[in-house]
Parts: sequence; C-alpha cells; structure tokens
Amino acid sequence: MRCVCVCVVVLVALGVRVNSFKFKELMDYVDKHQEEYVQTLRDWVSIESDSSDVTKRAELQRMMGVVEEKLRMMKGNVDVMDVGTQRLADGSIIPLPKVVTAEFGDDVNKHTVCVYGHVDIQPARREDGWATDPYNLTEIKGNLYGRGASDNKGPVLAWIHAVEAYKALDIELPVNVKFLIEGMEETGSNGLDALVEAQKDKFFSDVDYIIISDCIWKSTRPALTYGTRGNCYFSAQVEGPKQDLHSGVDGGAVIEPMTDLIGILDTLISASGQILIPGVADAVTNFTEEERKLYEQVGFNLETYKSTIGVDRLMYDNKVDLLAHLWRFPTVSIHGIEGAFSSPGTKTVIPAKVTAKFSIRQVPNMEPAVVEKQVTDHLHAVFERRKSPNKLKVNMIIGAKPWIADPKHALYEAGKRAVKRVFHVEPEMIREGGTIPIARTFQDVTEKYIIMLPIGGFDDGLHSQNEKISRYNYIEGTKLFITYLQEVSLIKEN
Amino acid sequence: MRCVCVCVVVLVALGVRVNSFKFKELMDYVDKHQEEYVQTLRDWVSIESDSSDVTKRAELQRMMGVVEEKLRMMKGNVDVMDVGTQRLADGSIIPLPKVVTAEFGDDVNKHTVCVYGHVDIQPARREDGWATDPYNLTEIKGNLYGRGASDNKGPVLAWIHAVEAYKALDIELPVNVKFLIEGMEETGSNGLDALVEAQKDKFFSDVDYIIISDCIWKSTRPALTYGTRGNCYFSAQVEGPKQDLHSGVDGGAVIEPMTDLIGILDTLISASGQILIPGVADAVTNFTEEERKLYEQVGFNLETYKSTIGVDRLMYDNKVDLLAHLWRFPTVSIHGIEGAFSSPGTKTVIPAKVTAKFSIRQVPNMEPAVVEKQVTDHLHAVFERRKSPNKLKVNMIIGAKPWIADPKHALYEAGKRAVKRVFHVEPEMIREGGTIPIARTFQDVTEKYIIMLPIGGFDDGLHSQNEKISRYNYIEGTKLFITYLQEVSLIKEN
Repeated sequence: MRCVCVCVVVLVALGVRVNSFKFKELMDYVDKHQEEYVQTLRDWVSIESDSSDVTKRAELQRMMGVVEEKLRMMKGNVDVMDVGTQRLADGSIIPLPKVVTAEFGDDVNKHTVCVYGHVDIQPARREDGWATDPYNLTEIKGNLYGRGASDNKGPVLAWIHAVEAYKALDIELPVNVKFLIEGMEETGSNGLDALVEAQKDKFFSDVDYIIISDCIWKSTRPALTYGTRGNCYFSAQVEGPKQDLHSGVDGGAVIEPMTDLIGILDTLISASGQILIPGVADAVTNFTEEERKLYEQVGFNLETYKSTIGVDRLMYDNKVDLLAHLWRFPTVSIHGIEGAFSSPGTKTVIPAKVTAKFSIRQVPNMEPAVVEKQVTDHLHAVFERRKSPNKLKVNMIIGAKPWIADPKHALYEAGKRAVKRVFHVEPEMIREGGTIPIARTFQDVTEKYIIMLPIGGFDDGLHSQNEKISRYNYIEGTKLFITYLQEVSLIKEN
Repeated sequence: MRCVCVCVVVLVALGVRVNSFKFKELMDYVDKHQEEYVQTLRDWVSIESDSSDVTKRAELQRMMGVVEEKLRMMKGNVDVMDVGTQRLADGSIIPLPKVVTAEFGDDVNKHTVCVYGHVDIQPARREDGWATDPYNLTEIKGNLYGRGASDNKGPVLAWIHAVEAYKALDIELPVNVKFLIEGMEETGSNGLDALVEAQKDKFFSDVDYIIISDCIWKSTRPALTYGTRGNCYFSAQVEGPKQDLHSGVDGGAVIEPMTDLIGILDTLISASGQILIPGVADAVTNFTEEERKLYEQVGFNLETYKSTIGVDRLMYDNKVDLLAHLWRFPTVSIHGIEGAFSSPGTKTVIPAKVTAKFSIRQVPNMEPAVVEKQVTDHLHAVFERRKSPNKLKVNMIIGAKPWIADPKHALYEAGKRAVKRVFHVEPEMIREGGTIPIARTFQDVTEKYIIMLPIGGFDDGLHSQNEKISRYNYIEGTKLFITYLQEVSLIKEN
C-alpha cells in the first residue's frame, strides 16, 4: 500500500479499534470450527510428502494438488509455478513439484502480505521410535502427533483457515493476502531462488511484507523471530572395492572405506564443540554486548530445555552462551552414514562405498560458497594424509544462507500487538537455530521486509520422532494470524 | 574305526583301487542329476533364513524343517537337538533354531565322519546393489547367484547329495556319515558350544573326524584349509538425548552422540592398518620362517585378487605379507552404525542413540575374553577423556576363537588324494581369514581331528552383494565329497 488511510490512522491515534475488525466474531468462528481444522490437518499429515526421498515424489505431488484445490475452493486466484527439474544421483532428471500461489484481494488501498509456507516433510518411520503412526495424526493429552504437524503443515493450514474465517463470515480482509506454498523446503527449496528472481517484478511487485511461520517458540511464551541460521549440508563419500567384502575373507588386505570415512569425520568438530575446519568460523560477526543483553531477556529455561530433550548436561551451562551457540554461532552435526550396515543384528561386512551426511549451521557473515570450499579442501587434505587408495567425493547438497531482521521494525511492532491481544502477554524476541532457506533470498531479491511469526511449541520435536503441534497452539495460532492481518493493516509506513 | 582292514590296506599298497568304490558310476550319477541339484539349491536359497534378524526367525525355522525332512527322506537316523533360547535386546526370550543331526550307517568296522554345516545366511537386500533377486537363485554364465549359494547352503547340499548318490546307486558308504546342521552360524553359533559339550560322549562318541566345508578356495585351484581366524564382534552404543533432535533447533546446544561415537571409533585402527587398542596384538604368535615358506607356495595372485574385489592398491604389496594379514594377524573392521540417518537423501537430524558394530578377527594365541576387556577398557578410557554427558555401552556380541590344524595329518593326505582324483591337480594348503566359530570348540571339546574341505570359489562374494557358487564348483564339489569319503575310509591310524 503506497498511500495512507487517514481515517484509520486517526482512529488508531485516538485509541479506537477499527470498527470493521470483528474480533470476537472471528475468534468464536475459529473455536467453533476447530474439529474441522484438526481433521484437515489429519488429512494433510496422512500424505507422506517426504521431499528427500524420490520414491515418495508421487505423494509429494499429490500433496501439492491438495493445497492447490484447497485454495481454489476458497475462491483464491490460484496459480501453479514451474520451478524446473531435479537431477538425481543416477543422472536421471525428474520435475520438481510446482509451487502453488494464490491471491485473496487486490485492493491497491490495502497493504499486501505474502505468506510463505511448505508442505513437504522430513522422513519418518514408525520404527525410528514413534509412539504412534507418523502419518496418522493422533491426539494425546491435547497434542496432535504426526510428521509435519508443526513443520509446516499445521501453520500453513492455520494461515489458510485465518483467511477462510474472514471469508466465511463475509468480513473484508484488512490486507490483501498472497500465498506461496512450496514442496521442497526440507531439501533446500530447490528451484525457489530462481522463481523468486523471476517473479520479483510480477508476483512480488505489489507485496509489502513477507510472513513466514516455519519456526517455533523458545519457551511456553509466544515469540517473534528475527533471525535464522543458514545450512550447508554435505555428503562425503568414500569409495573402495567394487562391492561389499567379507571382513573375515578380506579383512586385513584392504584399506577399508569405513575406516577412512570415520577418520576424516573425526576432524570436523572437537569433543567440546569447537569446529576444527580451518577458516570456517573466521567470518562470524562479533558477539556484541547489545546482543548479550537481548538474550538475557529471553525467558528460556535451561532446566526445562534439558528435561524436554532429555540430557543431563548441555554444551554450555548458562543461558546467554547457550542461546548464542544456537542462534549466532555455527555448529557441525553428523547425521549418519549411508551404505554401511545400519540394521539391528550383526553383519561381518566391509562396506564398499560409504557416504556420510553432515551439515554446518552457519551465521552472518559466513557465505555458503566459501564454507563449501573450506570444507572440501579440508576433507581432501585430511584424506590425502591417509594415503588411501580409496576415492573421496565431497558435495555440498544444500547451501542455504542465514537471515537476520531488525526486531524494532513496524512489522514486529504489529506482531507484538497481535500476540498481546490473543495471548495477553508480550512476545519474546528470539532467533532460530534452524534454517528457512528462502528467507534470505526473499530479503536479498525482493527487498521486502520479512517477519517470522511462529505458532509451533518449543517442544514440538521438529525432524524428530513424535513431532506434534498442540491443539492450543494450532487453534490459538489461527486466531493470532487473523489478528495479525488486522494489525498489519494498521502499519503506517511501508 | 579302531581296527585296520588288512585286505584294503594290502590292495592299496599294491596300487589297486578298492573294488567296491565305483568311482565312474558315482561321478556319472552326479553329472546326470545336476539339474536336480541346482533346483534344490534354488529351493533352499528362496528361504530368507537370516539368523541376525529376529523378524526373519520364522523363515529360519522353516529352513531347519526343510533340512530335517530332506535327511529323513534319505532314510537317515534324524534327530533335532534343542540348543536353548536367545535373549533379545528388548529383554524378551525366543527359542533358538534346533540343530538337525542325522546318521547314515553305524558299522563299527568303519570310520565315522561328522559333516558340519549351516543353513542360516547373512542379510541381503536387492537394494544393497544385487544385480539379481538374492532369494531367487539365478544362473548367469555358469554362476549360480543367490544369498547362501556358497555360504553355506550349496556345500551342505553337496554333502547331502554325495551321500544320496551312494544310496541311490545302492553302493555301500565307505564310512559312516553323520550330519550336524545348525541355523545360527552367522551370528556366532549361539547355543552350539553347549550342545557339543553335552553331546561329547553321545553323538560325538563314535565320530573319528569332523569335516567342515564352510570356506572357499584362495585361487582357481582347489584347496584344503588348515586354519581360521576367530572373531570378536562388538557393539558400541552412545546414548544422549531421549529422542532424535533437529540439527537446526538444537545443534550447538547438545553434545551429540554421533560425534562421540565417531571420535572413539577413530581410535581403533590407523590408516595403515595398525590396531591402536593397547595390548590387543601382544598375544599374536611369531611369524616363523617355516610359515613364510608355506605362504610362498600358495598360488595366490595379487593382481587377480585386486581385480576380483576391484581395488587399485592393497594394504600390503607382496603375497606373503598379504596372506599373513589375512590369515595369522588380527584386524579391525567397522561394519556400520545403527540409529543414525542411513537412507538416501538429506535429514537434518541429531540422532539420539547410535550403535556402531565393529569386529576384530583374532588369531592364535589371542583370547576373546582378554580382547573383550582390552577393547572395552580402551573405549571407555577414550570416551572418558571426551568428558561427554552421554552414556557409552560396549558389548562383545560374538566371541569366536581361531582354529589351527596340522596340514600333514592323514585327514589332509586323504584330502590331497581326493582332490587329485577329481580335479587332477594338487590342492593348495591354505588358511581362512574368516571364522567358523564352532571349529575350535569341536577341537577343544571333542578332541577329534578336523579338516576344512572347501568347494566354494575364491570369488564367490560371501557376505557381499551377488554371492554365488559356480555350477562347476557345486557339481565337481559333490564329486569331491563322494571321493573324499572313500579316501577317508583308507586312513590307517585313527
């Protein structure tokens, strides 16, 4: 919105709520329809839209179709946008799931927000240790358990239901709302960067603000998120014999790929959490006194966190250092090894080709391209010293940049007002250790202002067994989104 | 057999073959029935009798039933012997597959041999990289591909068919033949030690010699095997958070179990193959000049071996050192990690509980109980230095002793004669890098003399993808066994 609605501003200045925002009516509508909302989430969770596993691609495509149809039924102006193809490890090429967009309203006198979300999920198998079927949303003590319930199907649906509530009650939307829903977020938003670039002066031309709800609170208090870490996700493959060998028949004769791989993985990070890859941490911005003070204000409780995740001791024993290492310092995680013996039982195998997956969460001002070179050079140098006849291949599969916003921007002030109205508390101002790969692209390419507005609980277990969203967060979150649209409409400057 | 058959000895001394051994008739019978033999192997391979995976236990039990029935149909005196129960990781207790025994002949004037074999298999999945279905025996260019084809279903069937041939032609068996077929070899012959102990003065009382054909040649030339390495198979489990975490949300805050596990695994063996666990190699016997000379005579070709397994360089570049490190020096292999992310694709998980499987092939005079203590102490000491809040558990799952025989014994001389008769070459005298856990128990408990008489080819790929036995080895191996029974009958001393 380029002009200012004088009457609204005057009313707000006088402390009078705008008449057209029927808060109670909208809130009641949400309460009355909550069973329906839960059922829709159940339908969505039942679709195994795992973007990391190409054998599940048909399910993911089906998921995208369901989103498209849902938005069309709401009379949105729906479009599906091609984001190209994906080359698989075997060299074959398959189409990426198309991005679904929708527009509700095009009043030039209103602000326009774009809600970004994703409906692909991380892998989940019952035998990983789920108490319930990960694809059958199951309510236990007010929590809705299922893969994708919180990351990110629940929040996407809450946004859809927020718009739907206005429309069902025939209440005019206070802002124009656009949706941009993708299906490849969990593997690095393949193709989306190019789409944003291409749509900069089309789909994004009239967008004022971008809202992302692909994150969670840090405690039981609602929060607004003003930063995320990036993610450089690597594979390191060591290849030796042409096929697996027998550790009795061949053990002692061959230089085993697994020994080589373990050897190089052990040079990534120390027991005390120090990254050992030369140069990687050099670009990290200084931890300022101002930041330290902000962190001190966060109502994050170390004891609660320890008991939630079930550990006796954390890497740091005070809140500020811990939050700093979750939010603004990089770290290395080793996720696992593909190609070795990973089943229960015993197998006396010498695996021929083993591929480790590990990732580095990076922060301002680290650059993925630089990290890629540092990691690749380091691993090859370490491998070289082993004088192994095996072959090492290092690949950066995902290179997503970190993102940071100004928590004092009007978009955040609107967020504070909305949280206060729905939850009757001040939100916490937090950052996110995880990555929303597209956030930084939105910022750099569209130059729009971005807010992250989470509704997921701190203990939702994203990417883990028994992921859930609580019914409370899902339903009150829908109310928050409804209210936030109204609060955004009151922003004066653009 | 306690007395000497004078007439036979005289005839042999005169260079006259014993009349009753109808060599040509038996060989022709085998040739004529080879399609039948291949079909029976196909039937056996189709049963997924994987002893390491308890979910496959029903298939393994079915396999044991098939063996029992086959021996009964041949009019053997069949018995099934209880070997007790197995405690699973979850604390539950299930019965072990019973051992099947059979006796053919009880003539006190004849020697009695006991043929030991196993019909359980290593795990195999098509997606591990098999060119064919591992459970559908497939013949390609004279090779019969399928899990267990060579290890050990093919050789067990060759022994059964050897006895069957005598019976079908109504030719008297030159020795009494007993079978002892088990179903837990691949996981360490659980329960068998106790059975051998219990049956020492019963089933084994009249046994003169024990024959094991659970091994392979070392080149294209037939071989007799006079030693095996032992196997200490370990699990090392590091347990941290109560469930998997998200590397973005939690990475940097927790001491990750996977980092700890990689750290301790990296202290087992050096890049150049040196075992780093203090004390482990101290008990190894000296490598004598005599042994060195024996190894020099083995027609093992390094270039052929390299091309068979598909590597550019081996741990040692000369035959004697390489054979020594396959046969009479210990080694460490890391098989894989359970509980981490092992699928294709990407997953940004911090695995909560990860379990490495690794094994040490040990040799005279290493003792499993000592190795167990050395490994456990070492890993705990290394882990201690990491000051991690995670929990480490080290378990020795298999502790099988090495075995060694005198290659100049009459049993081996009989083997040389049989090989010469069927294959028209002298056999190679070899050792085996792998383990047949029960060999040492047979020797220590029954005090019987043991021979290993392989028929599998050097490139059969045991425990690997595309395991096979060639039709040639399977059929000529059956002839070898027929002939060996005759040659054993000619042994003078007991």
